[in-house]
Amino acid sequence: MATGQADPQRRERILAATLDLIADDGVPGVSHRKIAVRAKVPLGSMTYHFDGMDELLREAFTLFASHIVAVFERHLTGVETVEQARDAVTDLIHTLSEGPRRDLILGQELYTLAARRPEYRELTQAWMLRSRALLERYFDPETARQVDALIEGMTLHRALDHEPHPRALTREAVGRLTADHR
Amino acid sequence: MATGQADPQRRERILAATLDLIADDGVPGVSHRKIAVRAKVPLGSMTYHFDGMDELLREAFTLFASHIVAVFERHLTGVETVEQARDAVTDLIHTLSEGPRRDLILGQELYTLAARRPEYRELTQAWMLRSRALLERYFDPETARQVDALIEGMTLHRALDHEPHPRALTREAVGRLTADHR
Repeated sequence: MATGQADPQRRERILAATLDLIADDGVPGVSHRKIAVRAKVPLGSMTYHFDGMDELLREAFTLFASHIVAVFERHLTGVETVEQARDAVTDLIHTLSEGPRRDLILGQELYTLAARRPEYRELTQAWMLRSRALLERYFDPETARQVDALIEGMTLHRALDHEPHPRALTREAVGRLTADHR
Repeated sequence: MATGQADPQRRERILAATLDLIADDGVPGVSHRKIAVRAKVPLGSMTYHFDGMDELLREAFTLFASHIVAVFERHLTGVETVEQARDAVTDLIHTLSEGPRRDLILGQELYTLAARRPEYRELTQAWMLRSRALLERYFDPETARQVDALIEGMTLHRALDHEPHPRALTREAVGRLTADHR
């Protein structure tokens, strides 16, 4: 494994393994040893790529947040009018709530980490600012914050609800919240 | 400890210790042994009171959900008009987002558990139905679901946001979502 540290994919493999482990066992369950085993890298190479568990968690969750922001961006691509933006936000909520369970769990794990340890709120803060910036293309900043919170709550409730949660219900909520936006 | 199993407070102590441990270490970090130590009860008495970890988690989180539902109920006590209900929901979001960090963490832990293991969605389902039933005193069922999701998202975002999140912003969102309720 002498050439291993030059493997450009090793860093990505470590981050992916970290997120996989968090999805399975939660943040408190991860360790350098477990990540190294899962990523199939020598334990010693972990410290070459990451300066401790704090940096590893920050980079892994930043990668995860970027993935979700990319889902936001994809839904808003080509959207020009406010009415199209309302439909796109509705579709986004349905995509996120029907998406991989891994993403749902990782989002919750990130919020739990930020709730438990305020020093990690930089991560959720950066994520919220990126989401809101995308929504501000169509809505004033106050409305964008309200819509961002609605996306959060509806995605979670819809993902966990046993009762059907039709598109019309989501669309109505988005429409109401943005009806008199400035 | 021969008389210990008759201690009526022991069951409550075990549940409180379970929630305390989950708040500190997350659901995957709890064990019968750790709970017994924290509750100051003999390990053997755990199985007298609870038929395994599944029952323990269900009862502990049901207790937690009842606590949050009681906060809902307190805010809606004496509320008679829809306009008063809008103010009460606004106050509720601010109470929950400024409340004990332990409650914020436990809520996230419950959602994470339900996201990770669908057999626990009965718990989040029962919780959502109780919240919505309270909101349905003032709003039609569809609006109540939308407001419940907004409460969820705004509480979380407000609790974690570095930027000020004034009451007027919350009140506006609640007012918009319920403006044309049936």
